[in-house]
Amino acid sequence: MNEIFERHSYRGAYLPEPVPRADLTKIMEAGLAAPSGCNKQTTSLIAVDDPALLAEIFAIMELSFCKSAPAVICVLTKRIVAYRDGWGKERWYGVQDYAAAIENMLLEAVSLGYQSCWLEGHVTDADEQGKRIAALLGVPEEYQLVCVLPLGKAAEPLKTAKKRPFAERAWFNRFGQD
Amino acid sequence: MNEIFERHSYRGAYLPEPVPRADLTKIMEAGLAAPSGCNKQTTSLIAVDDPALLAEIFAIMELSFCKSAPAVICVLTKRIVAYRDGWGKERWYGVQDYAAAIENMLLEAVSLGYQSCWLEGHVTDADEQGKRIAALLGVPEEYQLVCVLPLGKAAEPLKTAKKRPFAERAWFNRFGQD
Repeated sequence: MNEIFERHSYRGAYLPEPVPRADLTKIMEAGLAAPSGCNKQTTSLIAVDDPALLAEIFAIMELSFCKSAPAVICVLTKRIVAYRDGWGKERWYGVQDYAAAIENMLLEAVSLGYQSCWLEGHVTDADEQGKRIAALLGVPEEYQLVCVLPLGKAAEPLKTAKKRPFAERAWFNRFGQD
Repeated sequence: MNEIFERHSYRGAYLPEPVPRADLTKIMEAGLAAPSGCNKQTTSLIAVDDPALLAEIFAIMELSFCKSAPAVICVLTKRIVAYRDGWGKERWYGVQDYAAAIENMLLEAVSLGYQSCWLEGHVTDADEQGKRIAALLGVPEEYQLVCVLPLGKAAEPLKTAKKRPFAERAWFNRFGQD
């Protein structure tokens, strides 16, 4: 699948064209189609295309890039326990669930001609940008806002992250074996 | 992207046809092409197509399904810290990284005509199936085996998980707003 190899984290400027609601919907549908542990569907999404809200979100995030994105999708997770294991320990797959949903959205965005970047680190760091963005969007307390995906058409060339070669990360039948 | 909507968790029997190495390689390349926090590439993979090893893995996993899969991909993660936040707290994105890699592999598998199922719960539960599979495959201690993906052609019809409607999980500009 070409989209998998054409997806790159984009940190450049965006063209001022808005992202149509139909495309935001398609991208969110792709996110919601991701699998979730025990089908608990712990992930929810809010697309923001209101310019005043976008400006407030980018002000909270203090980003030096992505500020020109005409839309973002905010990713929410809810602590819905999947099951208790044989030792009584609660298993929650929310991180796996939202990560799979994000990857689907990044791929769907690429397939529709948009760029994005998985912004999670500073959103969930101790400075709690995510909490402030959640308050702005009326998100109830039982949800955590964990990621912001800027969306739009790139105004600058894409950059490719350098990755270690296949033979250092993938093997057959035994660790380290070609 | 059709693959996103055609992917389902498959728990049925598999046809006995082997999965060619070229296809296992393509699927693992798709996994390694996933983004990772600060590009730390915390995810590694081992494809298993040796019938004796497969039998041992399925014996450890005590599964009532997927046992007829002609191949599996085992997903490994390594604790490589992405950065320390402004409060000195270590941030590690290994779960997000391997979940995105798994989703890419599930989609690439669908695009090549295979089925799979994200098997993580019992692999990482307190009974430590993952540790025993890792020992079998010679995985060094600094890696954790977190997921097993069976791979093969389906011998039975696919089943679709029922999901809550879009309007209950995705909104515009404010939580709960159409």
